[in-house]
Amino acid sequence: MPVGTLGTVKGLDVSRVEDTGAQVVLANAYHLALRPGAKTVAALGGLHAFMGWSGPILTDSGGFQVFSLAHRAQVSEQGVTFCSPIDGASLQLTPERSIAIQEDLGADLVMAFDHVVALPNSPEAVVEATWRSVDWAERCRKAARREDQMLLAIVQGGLDEQLRRHCARELVKMDFLGYAVGGLSVGEEPTEMYRMLEVTVPELPTSSPRYLMGVGRPQDLLEGIARGIDMFDCVMPTRNGRNALVFTDNGPLRLRNAAYEQDTRPLEADCPCLACRHSRGYLRHLFKAKEMLGPILASLHNLTYYQRLMAEARTAIAQDSFTDFRDEKLRRWAG
Amino acid sequence: MPVGTLGTVKGLDVSRVEDTGAQVVLANAYHLALRPGAKTVAALGGLHAFMGWSGPILTDSGGFQVFSLAHRAQVSEQGVTFCSPIDGASLQLTPERSIAIQEDLGADLVMAFDHVVALPNSPEAVVEATWRSVDWAERCRKAARREDQMLLAIVQGGLDEQLRRHCARELVKMDFLGYAVGGLSVGEEPTEMYRMLEVTVPELPTSSPRYLMGVGRPQDLLEGIARGIDMFDCVMPTRNGRNALVFTDNGPLRLRNAAYEQDTRPLEADCPCLACRHSRGYLRHLFKAKEMLGPILASLHNLTYYQRLMAEARTAIAQDSFTDFRDEKLRRWAG
Repeated sequence: MPVGTLGTVKGLDVSRVEDTGAQVVLANAYHLALRPGAKTVAALGGLHAFMGWSGPILTDSGGFQVFSLAHRAQVSEQGVTFCSPIDGASLQLTPERSIAIQEDLGADLVMAFDHVVALPNSPEAVVEATWRSVDWAERCRKAARREDQMLLAIVQGGLDEQLRRHCARELVKMDFLGYAVGGLSVGEEPTEMYRMLEVTVPELPTSSPRYLMGVGRPQDLLEGIARGIDMFDCVMPTRNGRNALVFTDNGPLRLRNAAYEQDTRPLEADCPCLACRHSRGYLRHLFKAKEMLGPILASLHNLTYYQRLMAEARTAIAQDSFTDFRDEKLRRWAG
Repeated sequence: MPVGTLGTVKGLDVSRVEDTGAQVVLANAYHLALRPGAKTVAALGGLHAFMGWSGPILTDSGGFQVFSLAHRAQVSEQGVTFCSPIDGASLQLTPERSIAIQEDLGADLVMAFDHVVALPNSPEAVVEATWRSVDWAERCRKAARREDQMLLAIVQGGLDEQLRRHCARELVKMDFLGYAVGGLSVGEEPTEMYRMLEVTVPELPTSSPRYLMGVGRPQDLLEGIARGIDMFDCVMPTRNGRNALVFTDNGPLRLRNAAYEQDTRPLEADCPCLACRHSRGYLRHLFKAKEMLGPILASLHNLTYYQRLMAEARTAIAQDSFTDFRDEKLRRWAG
């Protein structure tokens, strides 16, 4: 899922996002609550009308911001009080308030409000945040009113295998419609993340979508799929694209590199995206000249790359050749 | 003509530019010579392949930069020496060199290298720059080799009616394929610009395109057409769009205005552009949140607005109702 935190996938109009093959886009309840405000989004017709995106939308609950904006957040059993980076105003998020905001926004998929902590961390901090997240998931379930929204719970537990399993089991008992694995890709090694997936995903019902939050690199996506994950979101395709790094089957290219100055080849010969109608030399020029079209085209290519990778993965799964497919991709990326 | 100085209309991929109805786009020989260099553009297939624009392209010669970058330019009869704002390197532009660069770039329409001065200015400075521009136009004509490029001469003469007429007559004697009126919209009042068009345009053959350079506001376009102008270019639609100012038939809107916070209306109900699929409230949000999509959509709307205005003007001319059309537009813009 491309990330459109503030109701826009950075640099791309929604029909360009659609062109990439994306089926679901993400937005963020915390950021939209601060600006323009959930009531304003509702007054403008809800997130679908606001963004002009008719497909499914998922909103994150604000739980990730407890980690990413920790210096602006005070946590209690009741909820989290943030100090707004825009105007210093105080914003209180509780499980109930996060659900109310997400109901005003009107996404199709909504996330439980959880407590994400940095890794590595003390065992006490991780245990406390995990059980708090379980309590909050239950409060979210009770608070949720809209029948047209699907609420997903989020498994926490740091890098503690036992804690991850316990957390997953408690959430599954509450019978959510979908489950996410959260609190990963926050500082730990990829191998540690994969290990956590190996112990967590088997606890989650195969009949429900299983979503790995905030991940990741192309190799992380394939390793996640290998371990049973169905959904991902990450800013990497757009953020890296804005910084002139593009993904290809032969590994990433850094477009500011002088080697591309007079390179007439597209990023990838078989890619259908608009960026690949241009030469690498033109794309390099756009970045060197600080033209907006550089970030736009590189974001478009990267999102297209990710969507094509996922489409290929689905085909490989259907053909029962996913492991070979993954190994071949990993081999080519490594060069 | 939308302005794509460095080989890109800022913020828009070429198919979006095409969607606005634009038929010709502009690029700039001076800026492209500095970065990425005319030889690099040629190595990447020439401007059409470089930008991916299959329609006509016009390149400006660098003459305008003698005015806009005057603090970096030293003028002699031979030509102009610029100090590059990128790396301080020296770039010499002569009529011959400007034509050679424009031949490397490979545009369809190329401009004579002229000497543009600020207005108001001393009569001596204006007279000198005007006759220098005439000499340089002749040198450009002799230097031009490519039969597939159309060279346009540029009438100078400041705000001196007599000088404008003389300059036009001298250039017409040299028999160019097209003529531009230059050195306007550089600090003078709009009424002075209109007066210069009234004395200059009648000197130019009606069988050739007559192009008013660097102009302008919607009202300037209609006043130019009323005085016989066929072509315009200006950064205003894109530059103003990036700054949240959008044009409508009821006058400009400043999208950061709080009045639009919960305004569900599009910028214009009958506009087919992508921006007008969204609410004013959404567009305001994009600008307040500093999202790239704000400048992108506002630029797209403004270019569409300008193209629709020109299409309406062509229809009005064909229906012999241009004066009424202009008066009605001026009345509505004034509110």
